[in-house]
Amino acid sequence: MIFLRISNLFPRAAHVNYQSFRRFTKISALIESKPVGNHIKVQGWIKSKRKMKALTFIDVADGSTAEKLQVALPKNILPQFDVGASVKIDGTVQTFGSKGQIEILADNVEVIGSCNHNDGYPFAPKSTYSMEYVRQHLQFRPRTNLFSSVLRIRSCASNAFRDHLCKQGFYEVNTPILTSFDCEGGGEVFSVKPDSKNLLKTMAKTGVSEDEAFFDSKTYLTVSGQMHLESAVRGLGQVYTFGPTFRAENSKSRLHLAEFNMLETEEVLSSSSIEPVLSTIESMLRNVTQRILDSTQADLECIRKVQIHQKTSGADVLEYEVEPLNEEGIKNTFLSNDPYTVMSYKEAFDILSRSKTNFKVRPAFEDGLSKEHELYLVKHNSNRPIFVVDWPAHLKAFYMKRSKDNSTVAAVDLLVPVVGELCGGSVREDNVELLSSVLKERGLEEKMSWYVDLRRFGNVTTGGFGMGYERYLQCLLNIPNIKDVIPYPRWPHNCQM
Amino acid sequence: MIFLRISNLFPRAAHVNYQSFRRFTKISALIESKPVGNHIKVQGWIKSKRKMKALTFIDVADGSTAEKLQVALPKNILPQFDVGASVKIDGTVQTFGSKGQIEILADNVEVIGSCNHNDGYPFAPKSTYSMEYVRQHLQFRPRTNLFSSVLRIRSCASNAFRDHLCKQGFYEVNTPILTSFDCEGGGEVFSVKPDSKNLLKTMAKTGVSEDEAFFDSKTYLTVSGQMHLESAVRGLGQVYTFGPTFRAENSKSRLHLAEFNMLETEEVLSSSSIEPVLSTIESMLRNVTQRILDSTQADLECIRKVQIHQKTSGADVLEYEVEPLNEEGIKNTFLSNDPYTVMSYKEAFDILSRSKTNFKVRPAFEDGLSKEHELYLVKHNSNRPIFVVDWPAHLKAFYMKRSKDNSTVAAVDLLVPVVGELCGGSVREDNVELLSSVLKERGLEEKMSWYVDLRRFGNVTTGGFGMGYERYLQCLLNIPNIKDVIPYPRWPHNCQM
Repeated sequence: MIFLRISNLFPRAAHVNYQSFRRFTKISALIESKPVGNHIKVQGWIKSKRKMKALTFIDVADGSTAEKLQVALPKNILPQFDVGASVKIDGTVQTFGSKGQIEILADNVEVIGSCNHNDGYPFAPKSTYSMEYVRQHLQFRPRTNLFSSVLRIRSCASNAFRDHLCKQGFYEVNTPILTSFDCEGGGEVFSVKPDSKNLLKTMAKTGVSEDEAFFDSKTYLTVSGQMHLESAVRGLGQVYTFGPTFRAENSKSRLHLAEFNMLETEEVLSSSSIEPVLSTIESMLRNVTQRILDSTQADLECIRKVQIHQKTSGADVLEYEVEPLNEEGIKNTFLSNDPYTVMSYKEAFDILSRSKTNFKVRPAFEDGLSKEHELYLVKHNSNRPIFVVDWPAHLKAFYMKRSKDNSTVAAVDLLVPVVGELCGGSVREDNVELLSSVLKERGLEEKMSWYVDLRRFGNVTTGGFGMGYERYLQCLLNIPNIKDVIPYPRWPHNCQM
Repeated sequence: MIFLRISNLFPRAAHVNYQSFRRFTKISALIESKPVGNHIKVQGWIKSKRKMKALTFIDVADGSTAEKLQVALPKNILPQFDVGASVKIDGTVQTFGSKGQIEILADNVEVIGSCNHNDGYPFAPKSTYSMEYVRQHLQFRPRTNLFSSVLRIRSCASNAFRDHLCKQGFYEVNTPILTSFDCEGGGEVFSVKPDSKNLLKTMAKTGVSEDEAFFDSKTYLTVSGQMHLESAVRGLGQVYTFGPTFRAENSKSRLHLAEFNMLETEEVLSSSSIEPVLSTIESMLRNVTQRILDSTQADLECIRKVQIHQKTSGADVLEYEVEPLNEEGIKNTFLSNDPYTVMSYKEAFDILSRSKTNFKVRPAFEDGLSKEHELYLVKHNSNRPIFVVDWPAHLKAFYMKRSKDNSTVAAVDLLVPVVGELCGGSVREDNVELLSSVLKERGLEEKMSWYVDLRRFGNVTTGGFGMGYERYLQCLLNIPNIKDVIPYPRWPHNCQM
């Protein structure tokens, strides 16, 4: 055994205290603990500047919270700082105002990185910009008030969804991004191959086209992890996947992206009823929304303020108008004492048929619900969610459980404000013969034989749903365009950064 | 306002109690609460069967835990069940044995899905298979004892990493899978385009090649989210991403996949020292590993047993031999009282040079460390982790912070048993002129101008690391091949399902 000589580059304590390596205090911790009288160091970005008679004030953010830290600069510190510049501040914590808020009386302010708007920084101080303008400067967007709050809420919501599902007994299973099948046969898929032609040449086998040489088959980006979950659920009982999903659609809609995130569950059921799937969805949305309301107050308030400002200043001219978010609205939608409404597709269609509204597209039983119809139904349900169940089989995917008379399937769409369809789910067809014949019709018998095999051995009935994660955030935050709730949006003709 | 008629398909209580919709009890809950004397229903898969004189016993699993539920079948129940079949069991909870374990005395057992091995189910009762054989039946793999435990530990570990980072103040930022740049210029990337030629024709603009018509640029699968994190960290201060990453390498190694998962962090630093990055890594690995040991005992024990069985039965002939996992080994590696070893690249190289070992490749200062060298260093550090720091600049990426004399960069590799390099990190170059000139040399000045812009306005020094998630699991569980710790592995010539 050779004993290594250990260098003394960084002599450290046996138990590493992570925080001891931070040389500055986080603003979230300062606001929480209010260490009045303490001398502290803070590092952050200047968000605004106000000159008063005796002092100049700057508001500083470090990303840890939506709240800004007020810093008072005595006259000996020249207030030559740009809004947007990063600074290190030394000073003493003191209180101000009737609510006992804290501020820093600065001893010293050091500029780390200046921010000169004349050099091309796209956001000028004291200006309001439209969401679309901000979106054109993606690399800087996380620095804006509204979007940094969106990102913090995104992170909190993602944790809340995972935490809730974990507590309900669901295991996370990472379904693959690369697949050799085009799940629902919609054709709107991206295909993938190595960029290097040389690599493909090296790897080519006889009988396999060069484009397919890497995997020996065509390879696509996933449109759903459901079928992989159907494999995993037969080992684990309750599973979910939560990650990126892709559609190669030429859509300019405010609700579609080429890359978005989807939460999908699958669980063993004790019958062919879709009821437990509805419960899984409803208990999840209630629990997660409550947790977000409890833990992201400052961020929700920040978004509300910017939205009001955008509305009054006319910065945003929107294709789809929504009111600024408010807590009562969120509670009304997701946390009402009444259970979420359940109606059959037939009932939903009858309501639309009887309506005197001048729809752009008249409802037709054979055609399903358009976005306009979905939003109409929700609006006239006091903006509360609606589970639409018992769908005509021809409107839904081949793997959904047929009713005995073959006319409907055990499927559900959950409709909510702002976005319409938020979740889609079903009980899966568990009849081997029926499933085999459907796959045969589609010429998928061989390719999907593994999917049928799942049901040939130790079969159980399962069901689950998929939820567009960005759509949940849109609905929660009253943000009309999906591009404004995802960090780096990809859509037709746009793949910035 | 129209009031919707609400259907009575599923009359429900105002507050949905998710568990009330489950018609059966989970085995994990049974073992936890031990409701002796209660009549219960269980649904699961038969894992084994033993005929005794008076009774037949079956062991049943439902995926909720690695522990099996023993079910005693009185003589009136004919024990004609296949191992692997799914069953519903009605019975009464009773205790047996000296430790007060519980079992079910069955009133009734109903087969839901049979499992006939003669029809082609690949796993026979009472047989041990090699990891490689099991891997060839991916759709059934989650049903095996070892792999269902791997999946449950994976899910626990993923939650533990996220939870730890959240508590340390890191926000999750979903960096995109689709990017318009080839991050480190390695060339080993996958390219992406819509599968539909018609769509590309419809979308083509003049001056853009048809292949690039969807996004108006070449598009790749991400090899790292780091550069996007560098944008987000300048709004949020501490960020991470945790998701799929891709390499188009023709590698048959036991450590590489075409699609794997990476955890990457980025945080604002107060200096150019890499010290805080080391602390972030070490505190994370300690905390997460402790949590896994605390909460997945039954799964760890199950993996250990199967590994011992595989070793003694000779089912697995491995390219790289490891001992079956054991808790002491895990503690020794990740939880030792001593801080993780830190040494410079120069020191590591000197140890290798002085060694009398007959390396396949002789260590050369200019060439960096091979896998063999990495594993040698760790083995001779009592299987404890080693941070290798102060790397020669030419061995590392262009964006890493240069030392004053330009010879080394503030970079780190963390070496561990089984896999060698587990994490790679650095402080990022924050000098605009230096970075611009490097990008200019590489002809990336225009394409990466956004990356330089991050530093032109309100700049701060940042640093972070990337960790291969599957490699962590390999090291933790002593599993030599990366394909055996990911649900649906993708590697050259293999994209099953």
